[in-house]
Amino acid sequence: MSLNETLQEQKEALVAAQAEEDRERLDEMLSELRSADIAEILEEVLEEDDDLPVAMGLLEALPLERRANVLGYLPGEEQVEITSTMSDETLLSVLEEMGSDERADLFNLLDEDRREGLLRRMARQEREDLKRLASYEEGTAGAIMTSDYVAIPTGMTVSQAMMRVRQTAPDAETVYQLYIIDPDGKLAGTLSLRQLMVARPGAQVDDIMIKDVISIPVDEAQEEVARVVARYDLLALPVLDADERLVGIVTHDDAMDVAESEATEDFHKGMSIGALEDGVSRVPLWSLYRKRVTWLVLLVFANLFSGAGIAYFEDTIAAQVALVFFLPLLIGSGGNAGAQAATLMVRGMATGDVGVKDWSTLLGRELLVAGSLGLTMALAVAPIGVMRGGEAVAMVVAMSMVTIVLFGSLLGMCLPFVLNRLGWDPATASAPLVTTLIDASGVVIYFSIATAILSGV
Amino acid sequence: MSLNETLQEQKEALVAAQAEEDRERLDEMLSELRSADIAEILEEVLEEDDDLPVAMGLLEALPLERRANVLGYLPGEEQVEITSTMSDETLLSVLEEMGSDERADLFNLLDEDRREGLLRRMARQEREDLKRLASYEEGTAGAIMTSDYVAIPTGMTVSQAMMRVRQTAPDAETVYQLYIIDPDGKLAGTLSLRQLMVARPGAQVDDIMIKDVISIPVDEAQEEVARVVARYDLLALPVLDADERLVGIVTHDDAMDVAESEATEDFHKGMSIGALEDGVSRVPLWSLYRKRVTWLVLLVFANLFSGAGIAYFEDTIAAQVALVFFLPLLIGSGGNAGAQAATLMVRGMATGDVGVKDWSTLLGRELLVAGSLGLTMALAVAPIGVMRGGEAVAMVVAMSMVTIVLFGSLLGMCLPFVLNRLGWDPATASAPLVTTLIDASGVVIYFSIATAILSGV
Repeated sequence: MSLNETLQEQKEALVAAQAEEDRERLDEMLSELRSADIAEILEEVLEEDDDLPVAMGLLEALPLERRANVLGYLPGEEQVEITSTMSDETLLSVLEEMGSDERADLFNLLDEDRREGLLRRMARQEREDLKRLASYEEGTAGAIMTSDYVAIPTGMTVSQAMMRVRQTAPDAETVYQLYIIDPDGKLAGTLSLRQLMVARPGAQVDDIMIKDVISIPVDEAQEEVARVVARYDLLALPVLDADERLVGIVTHDDAMDVAESEATEDFHKGMSIGALEDGVSRVPLWSLYRKRVTWLVLLVFANLFSGAGIAYFEDTIAAQVALVFFLPLLIGSGGNAGAQAATLMVRGMATGDVGVKDWSTLLGRELLVAGSLGLTMALAVAPIGVMRGGEAVAMVVAMSMVTIVLFGSLLGMCLPFVLNRLGWDPATASAPLVTTLIDASGVVIYFSIATAILSGV
Repeated sequence: MSLNETLQEQKEALVAAQAEEDRERLDEMLSELRSADIAEILEEVLEEDDDLPVAMGLLEALPLERRANVLGYLPGEEQVEITSTMSDETLLSVLEEMGSDERADLFNLLDEDRREGLLRRMARQEREDLKRLASYEEGTAGAIMTSDYVAIPTGMTVSQAMMRVRQTAPDAETVYQLYIIDPDGKLAGTLSLRQLMVARPGAQVDDIMIKDVISIPVDEAQEEVARVVARYDLLALPVLDADERLVGIVTHDDAMDVAESEATEDFHKGMSIGALEDGVSRVPLWSLYRKRVTWLVLLVFANLFSGAGIAYFEDTIAAQVALVFFLPLLIGSGGNAGAQAATLMVRGMATGDVGVKDWSTLLGRELLVAGSLGLTMALAVAPIGVMRGGEAVAMVVAMSMVTIVLFGSLLGMCLPFVLNRLGWDPATASAPLVTTLIDASGVVIYFSIATAILSGV
């Protein structure tokens, strides 16, 4: 992606200041920019200008803590590129300043040797924490959680807890939700900082904490994390291991990022595009090709069924070439209605609006709606049938339209449920797949009706 | 939607307890449920069971504050249904307990008479605030913001500000981000509660506040609000009027809800479905029909161009009926590749990954990728061409495949940019529209190539 105008100007000013070694001006400009914006500028320097030394220079002009922040905002590939020239020592000091979740993500991207080297230089506690966080499978709660939360042991008073919050403030991802931990490491309860602030200083946290905490298992899928955070309007969601011990939290901003990237993935899946590892403007061409080609080629072969249907009815077609006029229209309409029905289900399932149990109710609704849609479209196309082939052709076309739209819609509606039942992602019921299946069925429906009606004419 | 099993059981237990007038058990169960879950149960009682008295009874069993909370979680339609039987007095006390943003939303759904009656019973300050919040256009920052933020006048000390936070805590939407307001009502700066807690109690907030605040104008589109909150990982985003006065804030949870509903709208638009006012399982059938039928009928007529193309080449077809075998396959493949390209652009634009300026770079990339895709698919289909019609037909089919896939992909890629340029939503470049356009062009491309090559055979 390219930068917006303001950022573009700021980038040029930064690069100029660096070239002139005007350190004072560089510091001033950097201090006025937000970390997310500096990261975007660095990305542009690395991508468009392909100028690693300039990017490194800008990064090094930042104080250590901000350097870690900016790095955290960069995509993985750029993080690896920019850290590749750092000494182990420098990288280590940057890693220490990063949030524990971002640190683990970057660590996972480094090569084996580099990782070993870094681990050797770390203190034991830190090393264990990093290895643990880096070990969770991608796409799970464990992989996106941070271990920088405020833990309060049971038995503390409100004023002791407040003191603990003040001490932890500089390092914690959020200090606004506190987690009360019993001696076994289990999550005993939670308290918001707001609740703590209005509580009597001498009260025990055990007495005022909320015991019924919303939490999620460490191996839960990340999209479920995002759904729970959104459903209950949470600031952070605690993550528990198999023994119910608190192992991390996922904060609202990370949950929002997950929701966005899951939606993007579903958009792409809906058009039979595999999950891209980066934005469409940055992903390598070869990767973009691979993610698009698989289904396209599979669908070429699926489309042969439409051809086979046509071949089977070749005599009908040869006798009435005018019928071919309506073919794209009929199968196209069925495909469109079917793709609509599939998308409504797939998105409904993704947001939790549609459950598997709702299947039969939704089938009834779809029957009514698709039936009405088919009738409307049949009425729209019938006059053209009369004009081009007379009343018999009009009847064939109208009847085919109702049947194909109804069949297509029901197929599109049911497919996500069937896939889900088979343990597949319902989003596999993409528009291209649904359209292709309906094309083949539409050919058979159309020419069967035509043969039945017109053979008597 | 139907409830999951746990909620279903809890619903039945609640309804039973209410029927038996077992107040104690009812209170106990309700106190253990979360507001979002109670709201879902009430929705089910209203929708599936169509039992307003039972829903009212459950709601009335809740303490006033929770009643307001639960009501806030219900969709608009159910809010209106359930408040329709409340007296003005009861409704007023519930409204008072609601967040100012939810209050304004509900208020906007009531009929004129009811609104007038409520306004008359309100204190002046409250009335003005409600009227102001209810007046912002739907879909703007103003319509989703809340006025329940913590405002700190310039000149206060840290300990005074802390006192103010404690006082405001029960009513504010969030106390974790404070807004420092100058005597003209302008936003002078911001401070997180975390920063306030670690500051020296005697310091002036003016000296420690962040002056360069990220904010958004009150008439900005809500999707931009969600993008800014996500980009800068904000807890809340301040909203300013034309005179730079702070008029409200949008909190992270509301921004996340906006992002989700905007994504759903884009999903539906991508399949030519209009914006639904509710989830697919709840929206009235008539509305679902209307949102789907418009584009479907328009596309029926657009598909006539494909028919016209076929009619034009009727002689070629009559001479070589075997060509029809490959028609669905070729136009289908072009449509699939084109829909992929369009979706990649539409989603990229929605997430901010693709800008209008990137057009030419992306065109070059698409040329390379689509060319490779077309070649791959041509290779896949060529042997079938040989089998069914000999080498000449295979050549026609392969050449048509490359041309149609390339043309379709470029059309799909460019359409969102063209629509954007015309001031339309790029998401109008839906899969059905792109597919239909490519169907018509595909027919012409295929039979033109066939006529050119086969007429010489």
